[in-house]
Amino acid sequence: MKTCRIITLTTDFGYSDPFVGQMKGVILSIQPEASIVDLTHGIPAHDIEQGAFVIASSYSYFPDGSIHVVVVDPGVGSERRGIIVFAGRHYFIGPDNGIFTRIINEAGSYLAAHITNGRYAMTSTGPTFHGRDIFAPAAAWLAKGADLVDFGPAVTDVYLPDMPKPEMSGGGFSGEVIYLDRFGNAITNMRKESLPGGTAFITTVQWKGITVPLISHYAAAEDRGLHALFNSSGYLELFANRESAASLYGIRKGDKVALTLSPSNN
Amino acid sequence: MKTCRIITLTTDFGYSDPFVGQMKGVILSIQPEASIVDLTHGIPAHDIEQGAFVIASSYSYFPDGSIHVVVVDPGVGSERRGIIVFAGRHYFIGPDNGIFTRIINEAGSYLAAHITNGRYAMTSTGPTFHGRDIFAPAAAWLAKGADLVDFGPAVTDVYLPDMPKPEMSGGGFSGEVIYLDRFGNAITNMRKESLPGGTAFITTVQWKGITVPLISHYAAAEDRGLHALFNSSGYLELFANRESAASLYGIRKGDKVALTLSPSNN
Amino acid sequence: MKTCRIITLTTDFGYSDPFVGQMKGVILSIQPEASIVDLTHGIPAHDIEQGAFVIASSYSYFPDGSIHVVVVDPGVGSERRGIIVFAGRHYFIGPDNGIFTRIINEAGSYLAAHITNGRYAMTSTGPTFHGRDIFAPAAAWLAKGADLVDFGPAVTDVYLPDMPKPEMSGGGFSGEVIYLDRFGNAITNMRKESLPGGTAFITTVQWKGITVPLISHYAAAEDRGLHALFNSSGYLELFANRESAASLYGIRKGDKVALTLSPSNN
Repeated sequence: MKTCRIITLTTDFGYSDPFVGQMKGVILSIQPEASIVDLTHGIPAHDIEQGAFVIASSYSYFPDGSIHVVVVDPGVGSERRGIIVFAGRHYFIGPDNGIFTRIINEAGSYLAAHITNGRYAMTSTGPTFHGRDIFAPAAAWLAKGADLVDFGPAVTDVYLPDMPKPEMSGGGFSGEVIYLDRFGNAITNMRKESLPGGTAFITTVQWKGITVPLISHYAAAEDRGLHALFNSSGYLELFANRESAASLYGIRKGDKVALTLSPSNN
Repeated sequence: MKTCRIITLTTDFGYSDPFVGQMKGVILSIQPEASIVDLTHGIPAHDIEQGAFVIASSYSYFPDGSIHVVVVDPGVGSERRGIIVFAGRHYFIGPDNGIFTRIINEAGSYLAAHITNGRYAMTSTGPTFHGRDIFAPAAAWLAKGADLVDFGPAVTDVYLPDMPKPEMSGGGFSGEVIYLDRFGNAITNMRKESLPGGTAFITTVQWKGITVPLISHYAAAEDRGLHALFNSSGYLELFANRESAASLYGIRKGDKVALTLSPSNN
Repeated sequence: MKTCRIITLTTDFGYSDPFVGQMKGVILSIQPEASIVDLTHGIPAHDIEQGAFVIASSYSYFPDGSIHVVVVDPGVGSERRGIIVFAGRHYFIGPDNGIFTRIINEAGSYLAAHITNGRYAMTSTGPTFHGRDIFAPAAAWLAKGADLVDFGPAVTDVYLPDMPKPEMSGGGFSGEVIYLDRFGNAITNMRKESLPGGTAFITTVQWKGITVPLISHYAAAEDRGLHALFNSSGYLELFANRESAASLYGIRKGDKVALTLSPSNN
């Protein structure tokens, strides 16, 4: 069964303006067979770090070879490049402003091209909306069979700013809250996969010096108190059962969270 | 014309997180031909009753045989079952927590299966996101041709909690507001179809002891006063023309609304 | 490659209710091959002028022959007609309440039909939801091959109320803010294409008597001060770099903006 590549869209455009719809019109004008999926358009305006986390934690749920357009682009129209990155067996299209940092760091290696070939862009490209005028057409042409090299010169120095990552500290790890979801769950940057011996050796989870019980699932919490678990994507998450932990406890992005491991594992 | 079954998605996940997009990635990885439609992701967090009303009042607008994934799931990860229900010629997939109550009550009968067959789930199923790890794959496999019996043992005791329904009272019916829409219209649980003799015998509509004029359509209201009509889905609805009745009059979910019928009909 | 016509949806229904999903169910029941795209459902409730601007500034990004359903319909159920308009090589379906004014004014000419043929509507059409019961089926039948004349009598007097347009004034143009986007950018009704000699002769841009520097792109602003540019759709836009100009400066829809042109061009 031949199926066109999937194109996903992740932006900070929100849902009240027609910007995302215009991007879809451009894509479908070039490649009518494209299967377009909205990942989310609710990235906070200009929040590159949040966009970097959202796409890195989501792309692997799509088939290999999918094309992910990510537009959080405060520098649109300036000298920042528009790029296509191939990493982890997926394609990513967007501004070269750090948005692909987590993907590339996790994949370990990448190929990339600077999008300069006007043949694959809207004929009249404006200064404020490269999502529609450059990135959407690039995605559509890629879905239609164009190769990375067709778009422009190779890029070997994609901009990869530091983003918060967990660190070894004493008898454990120190990480931080990097995402608050709509339920008020606070997701940290500490992953089960990164712990030596998995979760078996965890002694305590601490947030602001408070010890937080680590349990298996939301409903295992017997009260509204703050609890922790490893969520379905493998990240350590602070939550309050059927309540917003973020609201009840005032948890914020950037809050430190510490894991201690049992000595047998140190 | 052969067409793949439609899969609709109804959740309380909102639009700011990538959760719904991840579900779509999982579905399309299994069944690339799936036609996925968002019903809404704006169910208030954990509000099973509202989810039950939304899916029950919407599914019949889709073709018979469509697959409806409904995820309002505060007990995710606990012992509550994940189920597939066949009722009213449609398939429904989600937690066995009452979300399918209105569908089953209206359809009168159902077939159901407990989703236990790991072959039809994500290989690493986590404790917090069965929408992505269990319900989305089940929908995709069902769309691809799997049968109800393939997923697990039959369920004959789907959880069906009481949900507010109108009652006979004196010379009419007593119901309540069960839904407030984005325009501030207040939709009750009283349907035209349930009235003996249709709407012809209605004498008065009352909310909090106030008599509310019953008219035919929004624009027939001559002022911003509170009015009532039977909406396009057959439900009695309180509204204020071009205004939010909910805001102007302080109408809330659970408010009682009474219909009296003319004596000739009693 | 034969592809079904695209159907776009633009409404003031928001995202919390299942109304848009129900429309899609109706469309797919009639024409399962339809490719449905959400333009936006975030038009403010009953705001016909904003809907008129959004669809007029967006439809041309879709392929010729696309079908655009636009439902901002405070008069639903009243005597206002439901119409199909063909203009600018696209089809538009919705209420005859002014929503297509900008499209028709820009296209210069149109063909239109009053939707009266019950064969192309839901069998039980209610008084409150013509988007689902009349406009969605009409779009689906049109996508399936029905002709404009099949739907009902020709309409030659589509309702075209005045909508704000820029005017010559002294040595330039006077326009106004007609749209605030989610980033707080204030888009005016003055287009580059309408200026004699393009933008080369612009001397000053003024808002509330304040002279606003005209620059080329967002990131060219060196501070958070108010700036202006012509955006990617050709409209003059007031903005603050990486900030909300609407919030910082209190810009509102309807605010006047004046352009003066150099004498050599007058």
